[in-house]
Amino acid sequence: MEIEKISTYLANFAKQRNWDQFHTPKNLSMALSVEVAELVEIFQWLTEEQSVQIIHDEKEMALIKEEIADILIYLIRLADKLEIDLEQAVVEKISLNEKKYPKELSKDNAIKYNKR
Amino acid sequence: MEIEKISTYLANFAKQRNWDQFHTPKNLSMALSVEVAELVEIFQWLTEEQSVQIIHDEKEMALIKEEIADILIYLIRLADKLEIDLEQAVVEKISLNEKKYPKELSKDNAIKYNKR
Amino acid sequence: MEIEKISTYLANFAKQRNWDQFHTPKNLSMALSVEVAELVEIFQWLTEEQSVQIIHDEKEMALIKEEIADILIYLIRLADKLEIDLEQAVVEKISLNEKKYPKELSKDNAIKYNKR
Amino acid sequence: MEIEKISTYLANFAKQRNWDQFHTPKNLSMALSVEVAELVEIFQWLTEEQSVQIIHDEKEMALIKEEIADILIYLIRLADKLEIDLEQAVVEKISLNEKKYPKELSKDNAIKYNKR
Repeated sequence: MEIEKISTYLANFAKQRNWDQFHTPKNLSMALSVEVAELVEIFQWLTEEQSVQIIHDEKEMALIKEEIADILIYLIRLADKLEIDLEQAVVEKISLNEKKYPKELSKDNAIKYNKR
Repeated sequence: MEIEKISTYLANFAKQRNWDQFHTPKNLSMALSVEVAELVEIFQWLTEEQSVQIIHDEKEMALIKEEIADILIYLIRLADKLEIDLEQAVVEKISLNEKKYPKELSKDNAIKYNKR
Repeated sequence: MEIEKISTYLANFAKQRNWDQFHTPKNLSMALSVEVAELVEIFQWLTEEQSVQIIHDEKEMALIKEEIADILIYLIRLADKLEIDLEQAVVEKISLNEKKYPKELSKDNAIKYNKR
Repeated sequence: MEIEKISTYLANFAKQRNWDQFHTPKNLSMALSVEVAELVEIFQWLTEEQSVQIIHDEKEMALIKEEIADILIYLIRLADKLEIDLEQAVVEKISLNEKKYPKELSKDNAIKYNKR
């Protein structure tokens, strides 16, 4: 299913439950942060290496998949409410990032070039 | 551009900068939470109504669009690292949500039915 | 009990459980963000007015009290690990804030003066 | 300075700037999450070991100290608004944690005993 179709489905899902009253951008940003924290919770006491190896743990992966889906669901809902085209937004941001993190200057360095 | 193409592009972007060493699931979950907080920061002192009206503020909307793109970018990166199909994950979660929030019982109530 | 005594108690609590291996500053910052999200979750679908009135809801208040305690517990743990004196840090920050938010310029405006 | 005195000072600081209109529990929980994210940002690309060694980096430590102070400031503000005694809340939570994480069962395991 494409993002556009998911977006329409979610709008309908909310409408049928009278949830639009709750889905203000302010509240959706809070819901997003809560869902991301449920993902962070899975990784908080793991070493980085354990977080890489989690891919082999079927039970944990099922949970992670649900949390990641929840994040995308709220992100799609928020983008819909603010009439933002998600994929176009990413394409534009990617183009900005090409300038912000020039290949050679950013080698082995994840911090924004301008910050250094 | 579709998610799959964006995912390939981002993997290449990271590879060219030797950033895969930083992109463990643990670190990407942290980066996700930081990006979401930059979105929350925009809304924190606004009333809900002001957050709805922000759609008419071109300058703020440009900023929001960037933050939302950043969130999706890290989400795509994380899904790629964990070999999760984002759209399929959402479709499966939607089906779970149909059961978790039955239409009639969830009317006007955003809290999970089971929690009440 | 004062913060210093709580800090010593928590250090001992962690030591008895061999938890110091988990309590790196990186991990404690993640744990902090997870605890704060559990607080945000309580308020996410409430109106601001409902969030003010929650003080009269004994059951919710018991929950909020626990979440707030969890946040302070991890904050004290992190400060201990980084040898930061929490109260002194606040006193110094307050002094910075006096300059950052001059009384007259900040009237009715919660955004940092410099940002405007 | 003790927490109680800081709390009174902060209440006065907000009153002089007409900020009480912004300081609802909902908004303060958002502000808390934003401040914690600024702390997480410092650690997101560091290894756990680098996060431990950061204590020797004076410049980074000054920044961390400010972020930690901001978190405590908003936590004190929120507790004040909800008439919660922060230190008492921690003492009560500590007593709950003694039961939730029995010494022997929790050895080397940071996950809540009940969850396993």
